[in-house]
Amino acid sequence: MASSKNADAPKVPDLKDLTIENITENVHRINSQCADPRLKYVMERLVSHLHDFARETRLSFDEWMAGIQFLTQVGQICTDVRQEFILLSDIVGLSLLVDSIDHPKPPSSTEGTVLGPFHTHDAPSDQNGTSISADPNGEALLVLCTVKTTAGDPVSDVKVDVWETDSDGKYDVQYENRGDKADGRAVIRSDEEGVFWFKGIVPVPYPIPNDGPVGKLLEKLGRHCWRPSHMHFMFEKSGFDNLVTALYIRGSDYETSDAVFGVKESLIVSLETVTPEQAKKYDVKEGAKLLKYDFVLVTDEETKQLRHDEAIKAMHGLGRENMLIVNGLPIPDVD
Amino acid sequence: MASSKNADAPKVPDLKDLTIENITENVHRINSQCADPRLKYVMERLVSHLHDFARETRLSFDEWMAGIQFLTQVGQICTDVRQEFILLSDIVGLSLLVDSIDHPKPPSSTEGTVLGPFHTHDAPSDQNGTSISADPNGEALLVLCTVKTTAGDPVSDVKVDVWETDSDGKYDVQYENRGDKADGRAVIRSDEEGVFWFKGIVPVPYPIPNDGPVGKLLEKLGRHCWRPSHMHFMFEKSGFDNLVTALYIRGSDYETSDAVFGVKESLIVSLETVTPEQAKKYDVKEGAKLLKYDFVLVTDEETKQLRHDEAIKAMHGLGRENMLIVNGLPIPDVD
Repeated sequence: MASSKNADAPKVPDLKDLTIENITENVHRINSQCADPRLKYVMERLVSHLHDFARETRLSFDEWMAGIQFLTQVGQICTDVRQEFILLSDIVGLSLLVDSIDHPKPPSSTEGTVLGPFHTHDAPSDQNGTSISADPNGEALLVLCTVKTTAGDPVSDVKVDVWETDSDGKYDVQYENRGDKADGRAVIRSDEEGVFWFKGIVPVPYPIPNDGPVGKLLEKLGRHCWRPSHMHFMFEKSGFDNLVTALYIRGSDYETSDAVFGVKESLIVSLETVTPEQAKKYDVKEGAKLLKYDFVLVTDEETKQLRHDEAIKAMHGLGRENMLIVNGLPIPDVD
Repeated sequence: MASSKNADAPKVPDLKDLTIENITENVHRINSQCADPRLKYVMERLVSHLHDFARETRLSFDEWMAGIQFLTQVGQICTDVRQEFILLSDIVGLSLLVDSIDHPKPPSSTEGTVLGPFHTHDAPSDQNGTSISADPNGEALLVLCTVKTTAGDPVSDVKVDVWETDSDGKYDVQYENRGDKADGRAVIRSDEEGVFWFKGIVPVPYPIPNDGPVGKLLEKLGRHCWRPSHMHFMFEKSGFDNLVTALYIRGSDYETSDAVFGVKESLIVSLETVTPEQAKKYDVKEGAKLLKYDFVLVTDEETKQLRHDEAIKAMHGLGRENMLIVNGLPIPDVD
């Protein structure tokens, strides 16, 4: 074929005559002009998988168009307070997978899970002992936790972000009249012994937003839209890998069928009952529910090393030995 | 783990403890509740490829979030007259691939190519010989074509939809003041000899819409956004597979680097010059440009058989022998 005669046209690799078989290689050839080797690699894998998906399903025009319309609807329902693409990622297990890849955990540490769409940045900074929920209908819950290193040493002054729904299964941001008044949220700091504690309410199951395209997809798949009872936790401290996780209440409905694949066995906790001594010490009613957990954070160094090792392992598995691993991310070595 | 205690909760397969390795199988287990076997298979392949993509790239949280934001922008820029997701599908070669899968062609027939976003349903129905372009600056082009079967017999009364840009590389719908007045378009019917002909202008290269997220992606990939000179054709007649195709002018800029991967060698045509005899017969200026092409349509029966055969071949290649092929679409045989 003739090459481009336009002086403005960049010099690009000539495409071969396009067929079902060679279209993938041709798209790779055109994308090989990309100056960012990481983006080039990500696009190469993305295009390969997208094309294989179409070839393996013999995707029809009508199905493709249904997909185009679905994705358009997902994009169009997004607002400042609703992220339907994250929800879509959640219900196909991608969010959990990406979190697990990006935040690898040694066996002794606390596992991460999905962030979900309901974290906010305006939770009040509170002292240990604070009551995070104003809901009069919630069942009182005392939360007693520690934060330690993988070596078992307490970690003080960790910024701990906690959030949960009210007893109706709704986060504060799901109420139209919320305004600036956060509820069911707090940011607390661990003390010298790595302890942090607060009063909340016993979490309840709740449905993810199901009035949009993702809800319709779940329905078509014969799946429910419920999450089991849980409370969210996020940990930040310089030198440690951020931990985004949640604790699940053992025996909750939907414990084995979480719509967003957030449950890990190590994060399921059996609630206890507050003893008379604890009731006095923490100023809660005797017989109230008690949630105890010892969180274990991983240092940045440990995480970096693990990310590197896991990436090397994955590239071996793929048979791609000519890859550099930069900050845990594989990048082709030869350009 | 405990099974669901809620009477409303459907009975679903229990999830295993989620890890990077088993998350894919777990998502398949939950989706296996789907009552539509075709949707179930499509989702199984989609989730497998999506997860493999994340594992093979070690997709980071930041990259995932960039992807979420990109897809959201693509969805939000879509309007009744702009379909950015189709554009995205076009520039990664998916549109061409899906068309090629859905409309398989025997060697003797005319190949299909991308529909593009600029077809409308309001082109005027015209007689052979019509002038489709009102652009006074376009270079006059006589288009002389035939439509035949794969056996070489003429096909009469085929509905032929044609559309092209003006000499500025813009379709009528790209002008705000277009209103109901179509330009650069017509719907013509082939005559008894399978002949159709009309007057247009010599096509010019044009850029695909590049002021949105897809344009930004092309820029990041170091790719241009141009399409080589071409004219669109769509053929419809009962008993024949619809043919969506285009003819490309040999020697056009971007002929070997079409931004949407539409060019196939068999669709590239060298323009000729109108002879004195033709000028008289067709009432055009002597020396004007001439585009000649013989299109070959495939019957529905031929297409159906080919689709079936290609699907069988693809399933063999995948090592999936337990598939039914229904209307060319693979569906698992055992539920």
